[in-house]
Amino acid sequence: MSDIHRIIIDCDPGHDDMAAILLAAWHPSIKLEAITTVCGNAPLNHTTNNALRIVDAFGLDVPVYAGAEQPLLHRYAFPAEFHGPSGLDSAGEDLPPARGTVQTQHAVDTIIERVEAAPGEITLVVIGPMTNLALALALRPSLAQKLRQVVFMGGSATEGNVTPAAEFNVWADAEAARIVFRSGVRLVMFGLNATHQTLMRREDVAKIRAAQPGSNPVADIMDFYCGTYFRFAGADKPGAPMHDPCAIAYLIEPTIFELTERPGEVLVSADGGYGQTLIDMRPQDPAHDTRVKNVAVAIKADPIRFAALVTEALSWAAGRISSTR
Amino acid sequence: MSDIHRIIIDCDPGHDDMAAILLAAWHPSIKLEAITTVCGNAPLNHTTNNALRIVDAFGLDVPVYAGAEQPLLHRYAFPAEFHGPSGLDSAGEDLPPARGTVQTQHAVDTIIERVEAAPGEITLVVIGPMTNLALALALRPSLAQKLRQVVFMGGSATEGNVTPAAEFNVWADAEAARIVFRSGVRLVMFGLNATHQTLMRREDVAKIRAAQPGSNPVADIMDFYCGTYFRFAGADKPGAPMHDPCAIAYLIEPTIFELTERPGEVLVSADGGYGQTLIDMRPQDPAHDTRVKNVAVAIKADPIRFAALVTEALSWAAGRISSTR
Amino acid sequence: MSDIHRIIIDCDPGHDDMAAILLAAWHPSIKLEAITTVCGNAPLNHTTNNALRIVDAFGLDVPVYAGAEQPLLHRYAFPAEFHGPSGLDSAGEDLPPARGTVQTQHAVDTIIERVEAAPGEITLVVIGPMTNLALALALRPSLAQKLRQVVFMGGSATEGNVTPAAEFNVWADAEAARIVFRSGVRLVMFGLNATHQTLMRREDVAKIRAAQPGSNPVADIMDFYCGTYFRFAGADKPGAPMHDPCAIAYLIEPTIFELTERPGEVLVSADGGYGQTLIDMRPQDPAHDTRVKNVAVAIKADPIRFAALVTEALSWAAGRISSTR
Amino acid sequence: MSDIHRIIIDCDPGHDDMAAILLAAWHPSIKLEAITTVCGNAPLNHTTNNALRIVDAFGLDVPVYAGAEQPLLHRYAFPAEFHGPSGLDSAGEDLPPARGTVQTQHAVDTIIERVEAAPGEITLVVIGPMTNLALALALRPSLAQKLRQVVFMGGSATEGNVTPAAEFNVWADAEAARIVFRSGVRLVMFGLNATHQTLMRREDVAKIRAAQPGSNPVADIMDFYCGTYFRFAGADKPGAPMHDPCAIAYLIEPTIFELTERPGEVLVSADGGYGQTLIDMRPQDPAHDTRVKNVAVAIKADPIRFAALVTEALSWAAGRISSTR
Repeated sequence: MSDIHRIIIDCDPGHDDMAAILLAAWHPSIKLEAITTVCGNAPLNHTTNNALRIVDAFGLDVPVYAGAEQPLLHRYAFPAEFHGPSGLDSAGEDLPPARGTVQTQHAVDTIIERVEAAPGEITLVVIGPMTNLALALALRPSLAQKLRQVVFMGGSATEGNVTPAAEFNVWADAEAARIVFRSGVRLVMFGLNATHQTLMRREDVAKIRAAQPGSNPVADIMDFYCGTYFRFAGADKPGAPMHDPCAIAYLIEPTIFELTERPGEVLVSADGGYGQTLIDMRPQDPAHDTRVKNVAVAIKADPIRFAALVTEALSWAAGRISSTR
Repeated sequence: MSDIHRIIIDCDPGHDDMAAILLAAWHPSIKLEAITTVCGNAPLNHTTNNALRIVDAFGLDVPVYAGAEQPLLHRYAFPAEFHGPSGLDSAGEDLPPARGTVQTQHAVDTIIERVEAAPGEITLVVIGPMTNLALALALRPSLAQKLRQVVFMGGSATEGNVTPAAEFNVWADAEAARIVFRSGVRLVMFGLNATHQTLMRREDVAKIRAAQPGSNPVADIMDFYCGTYFRFAGADKPGAPMHDPCAIAYLIEPTIFELTERPGEVLVSADGGYGQTLIDMRPQDPAHDTRVKNVAVAIKADPIRFAALVTEALSWAAGRISSTR
Repeated sequence: MSDIHRIIIDCDPGHDDMAAILLAAWHPSIKLEAITTVCGNAPLNHTTNNALRIVDAFGLDVPVYAGAEQPLLHRYAFPAEFHGPSGLDSAGEDLPPARGTVQTQHAVDTIIERVEAAPGEITLVVIGPMTNLALALALRPSLAQKLRQVVFMGGSATEGNVTPAAEFNVWADAEAARIVFRSGVRLVMFGLNATHQTLMRREDVAKIRAAQPGSNPVADIMDFYCGTYFRFAGADKPGAPMHDPCAIAYLIEPTIFELTERPGEVLVSADGGYGQTLIDMRPQDPAHDTRVKNVAVAIKADPIRFAALVTEALSWAAGRISSTR
Repeated sequence: MSDIHRIIIDCDPGHDDMAAILLAAWHPSIKLEAITTVCGNAPLNHTTNNALRIVDAFGLDVPVYAGAEQPLLHRYAFPAEFHGPSGLDSAGEDLPPARGTVQTQHAVDTIIERVEAAPGEITLVVIGPMTNLALALALRPSLAQKLRQVVFMGGSATEGNVTPAAEFNVWADAEAARIVFRSGVRLVMFGLNATHQTLMRREDVAKIRAAQPGSNPVADIMDFYCGTYFRFAGADKPGAPMHDPCAIAYLIEPTIFELTERPGEVLVSADGGYGQTLIDMRPQDPAHDTRVKNVAVAIKADPIRFAALVTEALSWAAGRISSTR
């Protein structure tokens, strides 16, 4: 790809958030201009602190902005069983404490300012709940036309995780997701139906560990992540889904994925459907299909090319953390 | 199977309803004791009249009982584009007008009476909206324990047809379906996720036509059904889904299908999710899974064995109609 | 009134249900042809048993039919704090155990049969949840035209009791109430907004007690009812609302109440509004008002005339129980 | 009152919005520091332009900030029949076009900045939909503790206007209102149940007209407002409700109103209840009442003192517009 993607990552790190950030930092086709944080997997102060630790540990030159402290309306208990109490726990050595500090500007304000300063240029990569983006769009509806696109990990065209039909990121703030889905922004969705095809396998972690003998927090963190998944989903699983890095991998090598343009909506009723992304996957006669297709939905992934990309990025990162100490 | 299934078919014929009735009438392992009708694909007077025409045309010795005139709460326009104005239109010769008459007893009352007279014996096969069964269960909650099982065509574990997530039969009376799902009755579900694997192909219709040269209303009706589907879904499709006969085929040869026991619920909110069957397909650690699995969901079908079964039954029926004239 | 009202009382006794039954039994303008019971204040076996005890104790010649064991979809804990464990507790002497037995026909079936046998004649007085009536209308939609009217205690045009907006009877089976509200039947509603104006005062109970010195279970039961209310709502209240007898008092002396014809709907969302009767009380220009007014809502009551009527009926009943022993 | 209220008025002028602004501008106990606008009665560009026209015409020294262009999720057609196409039409002479210009800062940002600069000092008076305040609280949840209070016109403890139960301002953005109701901010509510007691009568308009013979756009605008109301609600009505000025009158003379602290919630289901403020008006035993009472609800108004206050303010304004020309 000769094209350079200027991106903001809006996230709640999170183990796979870290992998997404590192993938973006590593690849020359991505220019990571800012990291914004949100309440999601863990409280905002944890996710912001984790973002700062990642930036410091890997010597990234990226400002971090804190965003929404809570979803618009939904309240829930944090899923500490998946990411550990800090939101970024490790099976061995942790990342060192953060030395840098968060920017004073609000995440929502920096998103607005950066996008308005470069209309049509910025891709927002949302890999946590959509609260920040929804607030930006509510404050400035015209942002939907000024963003190049929103690439997000969230939702599902098939089954969910946190409920039978809902995926965590969308469920955590379904009203925010509905605002985004209805905004008219160009949306590219990596839901569970796609991310369950993109695995970090035991042999991938082994490669990352081998790339940096001795102290290797990157491998330790991936071990914790995979271990948690295997305990939950069964030790016979070939690997743990790498949800968040999909959104970055798509920017680097879009042909890893197959996408389809679809009408999509988010359910918000106080019923079993709360937080479901209702993607219209029904076949339709193209000659008579007048539906508005507001979301490009990833439906297939090439797991081999994906694993190679992520493994290479994390191996690079494992070496980089060592050299920045 | 040496076992004989004593069944009532609760239906809204409908082309594939006819195929289901004929499959049941044909196979020696099924004892079809009554047909009950419901408002669904067409108004009750149409579906009842169609049931009578089927019984007469094929010389079946089965009483027909009319049931609910309308869903509990949902009101909708009849989908005349799928089944034609009569609900059972043909691409050639129609079935003759009905000579027989409907029973005076209400469908709901005969269901209650027949099940209470033979506890543990009767299988109710529901291939229309669940209004009649819901009313029977509301009048007599203990019926849930007295029915041998309810085998139904409806819902979906994946995408819907009438909405992105909802299948017609469940959507037509979602409150009724919720009553059934929560009743404690043994439920076996053939949703779109399974019935889209069971096709009537062009060569199957050709076999049915060849079985009875000359006048062949059965083949004509199947031609209409397939033609409608091809116009809607694309002429490149290998065949048209045979939704309703799945429920009967399962009783005759259960190994045609693969089933999984799952927790299931029906969404009723006045939102995009109305009428969705929310089947929990998430993998779960068996050691820690305490969920109530109230529905056995068909997830795979053997299309070859299924097509053979249905084609043989309809070929038999094509001959039978001729001989009863 | 020279007109005789042929009525069925559909109830869940219940202290004020008893008062309603006795008011109907006492007054010559009412012909109480049947009592049907439903799950409501207490489980069906309790409410049915209480109906039988009332019929026996007061020597009423009225058959009792048991109806729905549970609401269509709603499940809740019984409000034992209001009516005591039996559903008809007393502050002194209880009614004797029932000697009579319940009819074998289902309440819903007798409602259908009796109304169809005398089209335009029967008034159904519903003073519990509307499950039985909803089932009858679902089985036979034409019943809406064959009933003379439905007079019910339930709902509210202002605040609720069991939730801020919902009254118990409608909330207990809001889906059933919605079926009734949408059926087209003539509906007369005595909601909390009206029944909070019709009180049983301390002096009324005193009169009932004075009417039958010595053993007086009627006065004892009313003492329990008022005592419970005063404990809950404050001992400074002038009296306890006589909800259910309003429906009968209206038939005897309609001018006790002021009614207004209004559009009405029942909320069923799984939200704070579940079970609210949404009565459109907005003023409207009569010349341009095209709304369908499906319910006549009582908005004012004459508390003096009401109390006189009920007190006279219960005094009669207090003597009658004594004489039937 | 010796106390000075530092206030921001968040509004969608609107005839009664104008009256509220003028009441605030006139009375020495109020320091009107900013006007923020929102989409509500009319599109944002209209309401903002109207605010500017009011500020110019009456020579007010108050900056105007434009806020949200649309509600968070709700979309509706503007009620042009009530306020005319411009949102501030007149029965005679209109206000002159605006000469001043809107501030560049977003309304939400100025609310945040002003409240954070003076914690505990600022009263936000919301007399339009609550979108701006909801966004401010979503961006900065701690604002709920930093605002002195939010006094708003909206909702109802009894019947609604735009639907049987919902009042326009809350209904226009019910999700925003829910965010505010749940935020913990001190809330004082002037709903329809109170504002229908506070009338602008024909004699009040006559006084305003008499105060400034000749050109009198203030009286003309009030004539349009009352005329619209009389056409809608009946010419026999004694006057037209002055909704928005209630919130200011309360700050000037709180004893005009009687308030009660209550639990309150906003319904958002896609059902007939959307936009209803569910105020718990049930009596409760104070000794056992553990409910969180998040809103002080006005339940009574002294119409005479209210009318005197508003008439005096508008008479002052009628003179002032003349002198500023």
